[in-house]
Amino acid sequence: MNKVLLTGFDPFGGETINPAWEVVSRVHRRKTFPELQVEARQIPTVFTTSIEVLRQAILEVQPDVVICVGQAGGRSDIALERVAINLNDARIPDNEGNQPIDEPISEQGPAAYWTSLPIKSITARLRKGGIPASLSQTAGTFVCNHLFYGLQHMIATEFPGIRGGFIHIPYLPIQTAQKPQIPSMSLETMVEAIEIAVIASVQHDRDIIASEGQLH
Amino acid sequence: MNKVLLTGFDPFGGETINPAWEVVSRVHRRKTFPELQVEARQIPTVFTTSIEVLRQAILEVQPDVVICVGQAGGRSDIALERVAINLNDARIPDNEGNQPIDEPISEQGPAAYWTSLPIKSITARLRKGGIPASLSQTAGTFVCNHLFYGLQHMIATEFPGIRGGFIHIPYLPIQTAQKPQIPSMSLETMVEAIEIAVIASVQHDRDIIASEGQLH
Amino acid sequence: MNKVLLTGFDPFGGETINPAWEVVSRVHRRKTFPELQVEARQIPTVFTTSIEVLRQAILEVQPDVVICVGQAGGRSDIALERVAINLNDARIPDNEGNQPIDEPISEQGPAAYWTSLPIKSITARLRKGGIPASLSQTAGTFVCNHLFYGLQHMIATEFPGIRGGFIHIPYLPIQTAQKPQIPSMSLETMVEAIEIAVIASVQHDRDIIASEGQLH
Amino acid sequence: MNKVLLTGFDPFGGETINPAWEVVSRVHRRKTFPELQVEARQIPTVFTTSIEVLRQAILEVQPDVVICVGQAGGRSDIALERVAINLNDARIPDNEGNQPIDEPISEQGPAAYWTSLPIKSITARLRKGGIPASLSQTAGTFVCNHLFYGLQHMIATEFPGIRGGFIHIPYLPIQTAQKPQIPSMSLETMVEAIEIAVIASVQHDRDIIASEGQLH
Repeated sequence: MNKVLLTGFDPFGGETINPAWEVVSRVHRRKTFPELQVEARQIPTVFTTSIEVLRQAILEVQPDVVICVGQAGGRSDIALERVAINLNDARIPDNEGNQPIDEPISEQGPAAYWTSLPIKSITARLRKGGIPASLSQTAGTFVCNHLFYGLQHMIATEFPGIRGGFIHIPYLPIQTAQKPQIPSMSLETMVEAIEIAVIASVQHDRDIIASEGQLH
Repeated sequence: MNKVLLTGFDPFGGETINPAWEVVSRVHRRKTFPELQVEARQIPTVFTTSIEVLRQAILEVQPDVVICVGQAGGRSDIALERVAINLNDARIPDNEGNQPIDEPISEQGPAAYWTSLPIKSITARLRKGGIPASLSQTAGTFVCNHLFYGLQHMIATEFPGIRGGFIHIPYLPIQTAQKPQIPSMSLETMVEAIEIAVIASVQHDRDIIASEGQLH
Repeated sequence: MNKVLLTGFDPFGGETINPAWEVVSRVHRRKTFPELQVEARQIPTVFTTSIEVLRQAILEVQPDVVICVGQAGGRSDIALERVAINLNDARIPDNEGNQPIDEPISEQGPAAYWTSLPIKSITARLRKGGIPASLSQTAGTFVCNHLFYGLQHMIATEFPGIRGGFIHIPYLPIQTAQKPQIPSMSLETMVEAIEIAVIASVQHDRDIIASEGQLH
Repeated sequence: MNKVLLTGFDPFGGETINPAWEVVSRVHRRKTFPELQVEARQIPTVFTTSIEVLRQAILEVQPDVVICVGQAGGRSDIALERVAINLNDARIPDNEGNQPIDEPISEQGPAAYWTSLPIKSITARLRKGGIPASLSQTAGTFVCNHLFYGLQHMIATEFPGIRGGFIHIPYLPIQTAQKPQIPSMSLETMVEAIEIAVIASVQHDRDIIASEGQLH
């Protein structure tokens, strides 16, 4: 039986909830896929510690696929992240007060890692399912990119059989009820989106060919 | 028993569905409020005809409250319209090919009508319910504003006991699945929003005092 | 000789400059049009007082055309305002601490006034001149709309020979240098834009027919 | 005497001008800095060829600093690019009809290269000069990122003494005159911006420490 590890962060940046954890914990509980074991773990929004907590979860769950999910406040669609960069540059402190500026995540690691999720297959399936989605070429320089880079670095150096990557999701409506003109997406839509991503990630060992680039 | 008439347009502008009709027809079918009679009617996205169809629905239903709902493609929240202006200026043809430019809706009517819905009460209740909402000072110059003006003109001249107004809603996710970076809102959230608007409109005969203006 | 009165507000909302005054004072000083007398006056960003100061300027200058200019922070183009509404709803206090909510500007005035500037001619000329411009159906509910309504009300009741209206302009680049991802427009471009608006307003006693409406 | 090579692309994507070339060619002609030799070269918006043309220009000019400039249609500020990724994914064909999808730029090259321009110094100087600017973590996946990666790869493998990087700039106003609500920046402002970038790049051999990261 294929095992899938999902992660979502705890709230940060003044928010009282994090849509990533709300979504992945529900996917965990729904058990939509009888042929899969899907486990969700919460990750602290903290540099370094987040990667260590992820490592422990991987050792415990022994997953075939790892999908880390994070909040992208202000985006309107599901963002399949293509590349993680070896850089921390924190605009705000993390949940333990760390605010690294222009530091590498790994002294020995490469400048960037590519996702190993079939992100174009996932994007195509999401759109076919009526869910707005697109590829993203930057996961930022905060803890989301940090964890994404850490995951790919662990896959490259410790867990070579795992397929993994990162997905950014919008705010929940309840988070933008007091923020004028900021997009959101409902919990139900995002739970369905992550379930589609799970299935596509298990089924596609190669991605499809499709133009999804950005001009700038 | 209070009677509420909801209207939603048919699809226009190349869309195959109109979220306004999807939402109000579901509110009609759900019958959430045993103490209310809620009726939904579809309105053609056609100048003049839309107002005539609305008049027939009012004569038939004899409502206490009329809420017309329309699609505001690109918005991210529920928009409570404050004012209807006496002007048609169509950027695209309506569903029968009419494209009036700078023509008044009513030769004798005033330049503008105010909504008679308690829009600040509705906005406050929506936000309290976790649904993004804001006031809007323009319903555009196409058939939405046309119907809104027509409704308020009929209330002023033919149906003085009715409380009425217009609400704009975002695209559904399925409409933006192929439109990058355009916000949407789920059907469930929008159905809940219109139900909140219905209840608030029936209960509040005076609006609350709250600052909801725009600087420009 | 045709006389044109331009107005621009003093800074408000935490800004130290107001692009409206920067622009109209330069148009005044440049004297680009030998056949026109162009006078610029600064208007305080204060409810009621702003209209009174405008009245005194009109009495003094005796203009044929009045163009009031205001800052629309966040817009990216020149906005030709179509309609002023009879409503004050202040999101922030004005420069003397007044913050009216849902009060009419004129107890006896109509719900709205149309601009009497040839806004579609101006828009066409601006675009032909390479300057982004569009029509706007709302000037907000703060002092800009207040002055715009006051101007049109004075034209309707006291100064019937005057042609007048309101133009909103973006931030200057210096105002957005610390505001990420907020559009701006250079002083030179905006000075040229207002000069084009002046000339078009003097020359066109009737506006052109062109579709410039909004869907919502 | 320090030598600086600036590049700008020819028009692409249906545009008749490219702001990048308009700007760098003016910086070349203005000769604002008597102590610098600034040379501008036009680069074709074509995969592979663009890098080869850049190599020939470097061999000819023998610059100390290379700044490649590109159009970022829709952005509102000067974007200092932080990282180039080893990937071509073309949403539209280039100017010779090539449309690579998910191909590496260099088979042997690393996943990404960092800019070697002092981008935080440049950003700070631009803002101090009243010009909106910010860091960007993605230059896209089209010819801009392609040339940026090619430049850094040549610096790493052929021209180790050069400091180089990429700057994205907004549309010119004339390009958005017919595109509603799309930001632009004036030619004068952008010429000044690139001159500030030139001076900062020559003077700063180390960048400043400043938080300029993105949350996502």
